[in-house]
Amino acid sequence: MLKAIFFDIDDTLYDSTTLARMARLNSIRAMIDAGLEERDEEKLYSLLQKVIAKFGSNYGKHYDELLKELGMEWNPKIVAAGVVAYEHTKFGYLKPFPGVVPTLIELRQHYKLGVISNGLAVKQWEKLINLGIHHFFDVVVTSEEVGCEKPEVEIFKLAMEKLGVSARECVMVGDRIETDILGGKASGMKTVWVRRGKYSRVEPKSEEEKPDAVISEVVELPGVLSKLSPQ
Amino acid sequence: MLKAIFFDIDDTLYDSTTLARMARLNSIRAMIDAGLEERDEEKLYSLLQKVIAKFGSNYGKHYDELLKELGMEWNPKIVAAGVVAYEHTKFGYLKPFPGVVPTLIELRQHYKLGVISNGLAVKQWEKLINLGIHHFFDVVVTSEEVGCEKPEVEIFKLAMEKLGVSARECVMVGDRIETDILGGKASGMKTVWVRRGKYSRVEPKSEEEKPDAVISEVVELPGVLSKLSPQ
Repeated sequence: MLKAIFFDIDDTLYDSTTLARMARLNSIRAMIDAGLEERDEEKLYSLLQKVIAKFGSNYGKHYDELLKELGMEWNPKIVAAGVVAYEHTKFGYLKPFPGVVPTLIELRQHYKLGVISNGLAVKQWEKLINLGIHHFFDVVVTSEEVGCEKPEVEIFKLAMEKLGVSARECVMVGDRIETDILGGKASGMKTVWVRRGKYSRVEPKSEEEKPDAVISEVVELPGVLSKLSPQ
Repeated sequence: MLKAIFFDIDDTLYDSTTLARMARLNSIRAMIDAGLEERDEEKLYSLLQKVIAKFGSNYGKHYDELLKELGMEWNPKIVAAGVVAYEHTKFGYLKPFPGVVPTLIELRQHYKLGVISNGLAVKQWEKLINLGIHHFFDVVVTSEEVGCEKPEVEIFKLAMEKLGVSARECVMVGDRIETDILGGKASGMKTVWVRRGKYSRVEPKSEEEKPDAVISEVVELPGVLSKLSPQ
């Protein structure tokens, strides 16, 4: 019998891809307004993407680096304009996908719920809190705390251990084949692929990457769980 | 003839004291909601004040330190709850005092405007941008960039230099006797004390600390400027 359902956060519970794109675009517009000489939004967006790819998304000084890439001196007005626009846009987009909250309320009556997420603990909790869904989860495990990332099985095992459940009683739900599905299956869980967003065109490359069910949004989850129950 | 007016930011252009108090109170409530064992809001508020006094207001891990003071283990859910509540409350209170914007619009027709502020450059610019008044100022000088703080005269001199004005053509406007008034006078400017908020009960201790005019809000500034004009 299924006892626990684990969720990925980004692009599974909320639209992280759109948030990032819109927040970055708005930060670029605000930096142009604050005095950036280069005014080509597309060029600046590509350059910012390059900086983020180079330093990682959790680095705190993307805009400072963008100025360097543009050959400009450090300018706190421009950096601050980028930061403020990003923050305000972020709060506007930190909303659960339609139907996520009612679905969590329903699932909570029958299952333990958890989160297994690659990222910094405080940052990932900030997302859950801004989404208003932090009270639904019995356990939240982040790669920062565990010291390894999905798809490594250790992070899945720790989450199960914390809930006192075995792999065959669990389902992992996420948008990425190579982390959520591959790792969930490797740890012995059933897996549900939420096929939407930037990883939706990826195809499973082997039996190890093949999810037990595919849905296009979390709201469809209760409908497929009955088919996943172990005999 | 007066040519330039310099402003302090915190508690001069917006209500920084109320922002800090409300944001900290809301962060404490959010941390209790997120699972803090200690539930006495006043006790927690005092403890948080103690932590802030110890590590400085620009330190990034006040809530982590609060947990230590309480003898608790690090808990990213509680830390994140504090951060998110602080941020949301902050944006709600980052509004200029009533009348500040019309006053800046009026003054901008006759004077150059500047900011002289103790603090981190990006943080102080973030405030001006959130307040929506960053385009009014011809120069913004922060202690981080200059390497010294108000009341040291260097920071006032650099601001004047950047605008190409001499001290007798300038007025410094701020809420703190010991930084804005003392430093403004020492650098040769006229000074206007905005007597409100947490420093309103301080009395000038000597002739060096005595402002040329006292007002209770920035909106009164145009009315007193004519009296300050050098003969």
